[in-house]
Amino acid sequence: MTRFAFLLAGAALLAAPALAQTAPGDQPTLFRAPEMAATAKEATAYPLFAAELKRVRREVDKAIKAGVVVPQPKDPGGGYTHEQHKRNYTAIYGAGLLFRITGEQRYADFARAELLEYARLYPTLGNHPAASDQRPGRLFWQSLNDAVWAVYAVQGYDAIRDSLSPADRATIDDKLFRPMARFLSAGQAEEFDQIHNHATWACAAVGMIGYTLRDKDFVEVALKGLKRDGKFGFLAQIDQLFSPDGYYVEGPYYQRYAMLPFVLFARFIAANQPEQKIFQHRDGVLLKAIRTSIQTTYDGYFFPFNDAMPDKSLKTDELYQSVAIGYEATRDPALLSIAKWQGRTVLTPDGLMVARDLAAGKAQPFPFVSQFLSDGPRGEMGGLAIMRSGPGDSDQVLVAKNAAMGMGHGHFDKLSYILYDNGHAIVTDYGAARFLNVESKDGGRYLKENESWAKQTVAHNTLVVNETSNFGGKWKVGDKLAPGQLFWASTPQATISTAEMAGAYPGVRYRRTLVQLPVAGIESPMIVDLLDVTGDKPATYDLPLHYAGQITAIGFPLQSNTAERPVLGKANGYQHIWVDATGTPGAENGAVTWINDNRFYTYRMLAPAGASVILGESGANDPRFNLRREPLLIERVAGVANAQFVNLLEPHGNYDAGEERTTASNSRVKGFTHVRTNDADLVTIRLADGRAITLAIAFSADANAAHSAAVDGRKLDWRGHFARFDAGKGN
Amino acid sequence: MTRFAFLLAGAALLAAPALAQTAPGDQPTLFRAPEMAATAKEATAYPLFAAELKRVRREVDKAIKAGVVVPQPKDPGGGYTHEQHKRNYTAIYGAGLLFRITGEQRYADFARAELLEYARLYPTLGNHPAASDQRPGRLFWQSLNDAVWAVYAVQGYDAIRDSLSPADRATIDDKLFRPMARFLSAGQAEEFDQIHNHATWACAAVGMIGYTLRDKDFVEVALKGLKRDGKFGFLAQIDQLFSPDGYYVEGPYYQRYAMLPFVLFARFIAANQPEQKIFQHRDGVLLKAIRTSIQTTYDGYFFPFNDAMPDKSLKTDELYQSVAIGYEATRDPALLSIAKWQGRTVLTPDGLMVARDLAAGKAQPFPFVSQFLSDGPRGEMGGLAIMRSGPGDSDQVLVAKNAAMGMGHGHFDKLSYILYDNGHAIVTDYGAARFLNVESKDGGRYLKENESWAKQTVAHNTLVVNETSNFGGKWKVGDKLAPGQLFWASTPQATISTAEMAGAYPGVRYRRTLVQLPVAGIESPMIVDLLDVTGDKPATYDLPLHYAGQITAIGFPLQSNTAERPVLGKANGYQHIWVDATGTPGAENGAVTWINDNRFYTYRMLAPAGASVILGESGANDPRFNLRREPLLIERVAGVANAQFVNLLEPHGNYDAGEERTTASNSRVKGFTHVRTNDADLVTIRLADGRAITLAIAFSADANAAHSAAVDGRKLDWRGHFARFDAGKGN
Repeated sequence: MTRFAFLLAGAALLAAPALAQTAPGDQPTLFRAPEMAATAKEATAYPLFAAELKRVRREVDKAIKAGVVVPQPKDPGGGYTHEQHKRNYTAIYGAGLLFRITGEQRYADFARAELLEYARLYPTLGNHPAASDQRPGRLFWQSLNDAVWAVYAVQGYDAIRDSLSPADRATIDDKLFRPMARFLSAGQAEEFDQIHNHATWACAAVGMIGYTLRDKDFVEVALKGLKRDGKFGFLAQIDQLFSPDGYYVEGPYYQRYAMLPFVLFARFIAANQPEQKIFQHRDGVLLKAIRTSIQTTYDGYFFPFNDAMPDKSLKTDELYQSVAIGYEATRDPALLSIAKWQGRTVLTPDGLMVARDLAAGKAQPFPFVSQFLSDGPRGEMGGLAIMRSGPGDSDQVLVAKNAAMGMGHGHFDKLSYILYDNGHAIVTDYGAARFLNVESKDGGRYLKENESWAKQTVAHNTLVVNETSNFGGKWKVGDKLAPGQLFWASTPQATISTAEMAGAYPGVRYRRTLVQLPVAGIESPMIVDLLDVTGDKPATYDLPLHYAGQITAIGFPLQSNTAERPVLGKANGYQHIWVDATGTPGAENGAVTWINDNRFYTYRMLAPAGASVILGESGANDPRFNLRREPLLIERVAGVANAQFVNLLEPHGNYDAGEERTTASNSRVKGFTHVRTNDADLVTIRLADGRAITLAIAFSADANAAHSAAVDGRKLDWRGHFARFDAGKGN
Repeated sequence: MTRFAFLLAGAALLAAPALAQTAPGDQPTLFRAPEMAATAKEATAYPLFAAELKRVRREVDKAIKAGVVVPQPKDPGGGYTHEQHKRNYTAIYGAGLLFRITGEQRYADFARAELLEYARLYPTLGNHPAASDQRPGRLFWQSLNDAVWAVYAVQGYDAIRDSLSPADRATIDDKLFRPMARFLSAGQAEEFDQIHNHATWACAAVGMIGYTLRDKDFVEVALKGLKRDGKFGFLAQIDQLFSPDGYYVEGPYYQRYAMLPFVLFARFIAANQPEQKIFQHRDGVLLKAIRTSIQTTYDGYFFPFNDAMPDKSLKTDELYQSVAIGYEATRDPALLSIAKWQGRTVLTPDGLMVARDLAAGKAQPFPFVSQFLSDGPRGEMGGLAIMRSGPGDSDQVLVAKNAAMGMGHGHFDKLSYILYDNGHAIVTDYGAARFLNVESKDGGRYLKENESWAKQTVAHNTLVVNETSNFGGKWKVGDKLAPGQLFWASTPQATISTAEMAGAYPGVRYRRTLVQLPVAGIESPMIVDLLDVTGDKPATYDLPLHYAGQITAIGFPLQSNTAERPVLGKANGYQHIWVDATGTPGAENGAVTWINDNRFYTYRMLAPAGASVILGESGANDPRFNLRREPLLIERVAGVANAQFVNLLEPHGNYDAGEERTTASNSRVKGFTHVRTNDADLVTIRLADGRAITLAIAFSADANAAHSAAVDGRKLDWRGHFARFDAGKGN
């Protein structure tokens, strides 16, 4: 028998014996009878909760008015039956919560009627007619959506189950949820016994059904896999899908998505089996994961690495739930400020607690910081190096993606980076080529351009060898190899990441140092990028930069394609690049300036000798207009085995349309040089005002190794991988 | 002697005898001694004014700290000396206001020091070294900027002049402002005696200097022109540059800019010579112009017709001043809500009144409405037909540009239109090709692509004949011809504009009816577009549509240019169009759907028989990357003398990234047909839900003419130019 009682005025966790299969027992899991009265009284007292109550009421009342509509499954994502079944699980979930909060019987009646109709339909279903891959669902085209349906619907059922007649309970238990849990577990054993986010949803569905139906077997299978040996199942997923820093293997976009089954199921476990100490499991990695998912955003939007939709923000159900459940588990006031930014919470006792404490003024700013997030179950597979110039929404953020492949949704982008500044993406990642749930775009699935462009290495800001992609474009090969993070440091002088990759290309090893460099009096830090590649034979090395903005100045002469616009290549993404112009920058004039919103950016290239620069745009060979058209430039050097790309990206100036005032539209840098000694690279930036900054980057990452070099006759001594030397006073 | 006294608690206008030349007399014009104490006390009481006080203080204190910096004029727009002289007039103006409000002597001292330095420099100046056209300035590259400098600086001077010693007063009067007024009037007679916005600035500068220096001659010249006969000068400009509806000849963007000298000078006239009744002049056209400038915005941004920067909003100094001065003159509470949206006001007694009444809760919503704004001094030159689905920032707005040429900044866009919906521009106007004040872009001037692309007819959403532009691309020809507005009506059933143009092309006459059609249950009104062209010989007719968004579906087969992308034409803007694909739609499948933000738009074309559709993008032949790359489609029919283009633009559906829910991504229209009877066009839209809407558009605009026709065997009778018939119930 479960003993956990949710207390509104403060949670008390009581040790409890093992779960017993009973009906209805101590139901519901999250809303308990003694607290309902308090909830009803408080429901309208706090703006965030009151708004959510109103929103869910409106939604559920609309569903009640529309009546019980449970169509025969037919359409793919975005189609009518797909959307209707989604509406139904939302309505069942909402009706259950509303019944608990308001006590209004009509909500329980509606959830009951819906569930009985599903109990009638479900046993008649085979595979979905629009199923097109290895994971057919029954209500939806893929079983993943069926699992999501179950996770939501079973929460609504949990909320009303104790109010039903034994006959109704038996019907819904035995005709709907029990067969559904069987289908999602043993019924698709290969999907269920996997270390993969789809399996997490399935585990959550099966486990939450298990707790709700008091079915110990389902719970055990959900936690430990079909063989109950812990090789698969929820606990194994927690252990293997997150790094020790709470970074999820597939990257931020899928972390957001993945969080939901993890936190919902964990919350059910904590409520029903507190002795599992699920939130303390593995040094509290689930709670870390909630914070990490927030850290991997800019202005609330997730870093769009791997197969990511760039329009996805913290304003999603996954994060409303994560923040509420995380807050219930930690009382961390920084989560309240996220809830405030979201402007929403959930209609659970956890959401009520968030709304109450937010109304009481307990929120603290969320500590967005520069940090290295390791990847891999033991943190051994590279990671994300996040460099922030400050905690604000429009402060600069550079993210070096030194993480591992991230399974089938991963992109071939080893040692790529993105840059946000002034509230905008400046150096971009395409994300995924997909129109979510838009029927006319392949039913809302990933488009073929996701393979041919978005995943390819040239669609990212990193080295391409011989116009091919990392690992020959094979993610299963990539999944076994990861970059090594050689160095990470964040000080007021600079934030630095150095990582190295071997095996992305046969015979090629490359290392990249990215430095976020604050300079007094300059709007935002400069970025220094040092990419060093060593190969075993001559090759063509391309370094693309996908920038956002419109060019305002180019320092070197161009040969422009004005009569017609050729395509750059034939395959591996190159077939999607239009070539606008090419040029050959010299040592002094390799600079391109663009404007984005009200700020200018000058990209200064010390490309290898003989390098050319290609200015282009994505969107070639795209007859269905599936791609966004975005500008890029490529530094290219051919016929060399070893090469160094040294680049400087400088934010500058201000364009004020309202005041019609423009300042510093020209770069403030007058010199940018690079020399290599026998144990270090030295990069010097000379500003127009007379200051000079030299960065010393030793080959060795040894913190204790002593180095010395001379620049302009001045002797520089330092210890460790990195040092910064400032000279001159400016004016 | 002036008698006007600004009363804080309510304005009282007293009749006054003619202006007498005295020094210093009743100075300053706007801030008078008795009111200063009240102002000082109130200055921090109202948030809007307190914020402005803080802002101006910060700006002026920074200037004071930097010291008096009056460089020798050298740079073009955006360059250092250009920006420094702009900073200086802002500082002189701000310092004068601050002196009046705070009584702090240091502000008067600083304005004095600046002005004395200018009095030293100014007599030494010849034409500006960067001058490149027929209007050389002295402080700036064009005299227009000199006039702007004078308008601001003289207000600062007006505020401190009575506090100066007679010697200083004489120096600044005689070495700076008097020679400046002479230069801006008789010194550039051809510029001054003009009916043009540049001349308005010059008049305002000369007149405001006249009032400040008590120089009757300058005032008379400013009001009536150099010959003092009223043929030129400020009053003639009011009479000839605005239509009776307060629409300014050059369009909304320049109306915003033009408003400033009009309202500032008018405010000086009202203060010094109330007997002029300047705000009542010509049925209060200046006050109408303030409201009209606000009506010609969407979500606060000006409709970007003619040479317009699309990033220009009501948040500009011109409109802060216009709103404050307009409010002082009218006490119209709707202006307060605009001030609230702007979040700023000006540091004058007028601004104080705005801030006080806003703080008192007196604001009322600004009545954004559907309206026809006539163009031309007597309203005889066409106009703008503005169709609004509601007053909100994200409601739909269609604007038919049936206005006249609008002088040298006008575009060759007769009977073009733009559409905003859901908070975004959906059918767009390029505006101007220019990077304001960005030195590297031709010193911030209009780019050559402004002539070769932005002004050309094909860059707009209207008929192009034989790949040429209206009037052979000669604006002086265009200035003499205007469209005729045949019909305008706005009812709950529909808003309709019908206009006709003859003379834009030799031997060609065309007529366009645009209908904004609300349909119950549809997100936003549909747009029906009927363009009828009659020529005297076979020609190629193109109808471009510049849309914003990404294509999600195309109804007809395309031939795509995948290997390389050709350029559409050789001249008149066609050289700037890349061709992605062409196709030949049939009667049933001529539809293109795109997504913009979270809404879909389907454009359905009943093109003439044999017509093709070209899908393209701007940006060809643009080696300096001066153009934005934007998509367009062109309906083309060749070898016919007469043709009709009938189009339907349907907003539909919703894409919710946060909820991952997409509805109605496919069009709700299943049929779109057009028939022509002997006296009318009949357009029928059939919805998938069974409803049908027929629009009857008679050739005649006669409101009393009776018409009848049959559609699907149903007889339709109506009276007048337009009727709407609904059939079916929907589901």
